[in-house]
Amino acid sequence: MRVRTRQGREDLRAIWMDGSVVRAIDQRLLPGSFRTVAIRTYIEMAAAISDMTVRGAPTIGAAAAYGMALAWAAGEDLDKAAAAIKATRPTAHDLFYAVDLMLSRRGGDLVKAADAYAEEIVSKCKSIGEHGAPLIKDGSRLLTHCNAGALATVDFGTALAPMRVAHRAGRRFFVHVDETRPRLQGAKLTAWELLNEGIDHAIIADNAAGHYMARGQVDLVIVGADRIASNGDFANKIGTYEKAVLARENGIPFYVAAPVSTFDFSLGSGSGIAIEERSQDEVLLLGGRRVSPKGSRALNPAFDVTPSRYVTGFVTEKGVLKPSDVRGALGSR
Amino acid sequence: MRVRTRQGREDLRAIWMDGSVVRAIDQRLLPGSFRTVAIRTYIEMAAAISDMTVRGAPTIGAAAAYGMALAWAAGEDLDKAAAAIKATRPTAHDLFYAVDLMLSRRGGDLVKAADAYAEEIVSKCKSIGEHGAPLIKDGSRLLTHCNAGALATVDFGTALAPMRVAHRAGRRFFVHVDETRPRLQGAKLTAWELLNEGIDHAIIADNAAGHYMARGQVDLVIVGADRIASNGDFANKIGTYEKAVLARENGIPFYVAAPVSTFDFSLGSGSGIAIEERSQDEVLLLGGRRVSPKGSRALNPAFDVTPSRYVTGFVTEKGVLKPSDVRGALGSR
Repeated sequence: MRVRTRQGREDLRAIWMDGSVVRAIDQRLLPGSFRTVAIRTYIEMAAAISDMTVRGAPTIGAAAAYGMALAWAAGEDLDKAAAAIKATRPTAHDLFYAVDLMLSRRGGDLVKAADAYAEEIVSKCKSIGEHGAPLIKDGSRLLTHCNAGALATVDFGTALAPMRVAHRAGRRFFVHVDETRPRLQGAKLTAWELLNEGIDHAIIADNAAGHYMARGQVDLVIVGADRIASNGDFANKIGTYEKAVLARENGIPFYVAAPVSTFDFSLGSGSGIAIEERSQDEVLLLGGRRVSPKGSRALNPAFDVTPSRYVTGFVTEKGVLKPSDVRGALGSR
Repeated sequence: MRVRTRQGREDLRAIWMDGSVVRAIDQRLLPGSFRTVAIRTYIEMAAAISDMTVRGAPTIGAAAAYGMALAWAAGEDLDKAAAAIKATRPTAHDLFYAVDLMLSRRGGDLVKAADAYAEEIVSKCKSIGEHGAPLIKDGSRLLTHCNAGALATVDFGTALAPMRVAHRAGRRFFVHVDETRPRLQGAKLTAWELLNEGIDHAIIADNAAGHYMARGQVDLVIVGADRIASNGDFANKIGTYEKAVLARENGIPFYVAAPVSTFDFSLGSGSGIAIEERSQDEVLLLGGRRVSPKGSRALNPAFDVTPSRYVTGFVTEKGVLKPSDVRGALGSR
């Protein structure tokens, strides 16, 4: 991803191997300040995953792989390293997958294996970008929700990948960025990525998305996905369902950008997806200060499920698929 | 409205005459702390309107009337007082209306006239509450957006009036309170009113409203309105349109509670309603601190327009009207 630093413009990943150390963008400081950190041991890597210096499922997977590579390069006990890394974020599927993949390669060069793992994530995202970019025309006005960007996926992102590819191809377009309460990943991270990439955008309160759609000022919605059922129902950040309904109501194409690995063919529909309920404080406090009355409680579902009938297409590394074509095209993988 | 204070439970208005002074709830401090202020002169009243100690169009109207009453009781120049009060919030229709009404009564007792003006507002809200209360059943799960409550309307409120009446009649129900970004009137003011009234509720991120509707956990939506066109299209706080579309998509009744004076029969439809664009900082800053990257801008429309086809009914002081019946029932007033 492009990052504007005091030294000029650099092309960086969320995490990468640099000689004998791993470097990562410290995502806790964004968008207020930009800093990269050096991670020298698997113990430091476990801490970086744990304290959310790195975040986003694919980026966490790459961090886990690089953590194993650091342990291997230092001649450490790989099983001990695996246990330490797995203990950091116990619900992160990619983390477990990446650690086990590295353990299965324990005879070989784990630095190369971790690099290949990260490279494969980036390569899929780049393909998503190339397949999705033709959806964005010169003058298009887009809307996205949450952060499905390069920070979360080592590079390029999912929903943001088509925007990067279209922008680098010289097309000019505008992105409405939902701020994405309660955690504000849109206002904080998506806006930061678009700003650094030089893509024209504005942050809006989530409440304003429908207003702009109804006024004919949104041509296309692109979001990411956390999990997609075999019928095309998908889970994503809370609020995604609202945008999908509003897009269909206003005749606006609604695309979901995600690698094929996001499809869970063991799920017949979205009704089987459990919704994580997060801390009330994410709603009740703003910047650490309580804005709501003492005695009032909050409900804070982290995700919602959007039925496939609202989805125009899935933008994957294998092309853009209609919901009805998903099972036929991908079901036998 | 019921207010729980250290002295126990009191029944207060947003503003009222108390002997020779006017008292008002200081709305700037809510919900963090509760305090009433004494206002002794029209100059103090102009300051209280200006600095938003009192807010909400009908409450501002009552404050303006009481400001004129204070000037009259002190034997001050009424034209000078009128000019000072009108200069406080130049776009507040109710303020101008109330001041001119008091000037037209300048031969009589302006304290009585101001009391009658405030009383009429409360009486309409109470009627809205009585007409709307039957919509709320024992066990109902409601959703509301922004604050159409007693703080804004001297007492009772519009959208909150049916809830007050139903609650005082002994019915038990639950209210989902949209936090209502960017200014958080739901999280701050509606939650405070419901908490004080003893009505069960939870604050949700605006993004979560659709999730609960899709899960069948919302039976009824009630919101207020700032302006209603003769065809039933209406303007209200940004995000209202989203909730209306989601309600219809999920087969949930959607009611708009407002006095008849909110209807503007000079407007054929909502397309003639201008939308105020407010400061970007309301979106870009939270609690005074910037959360979004420097260089990113925001769009911040304060209101949106909801077409009448999404409205189940208007709850007015003259009864509950279908959008198609509005012109026939009220058009000749």
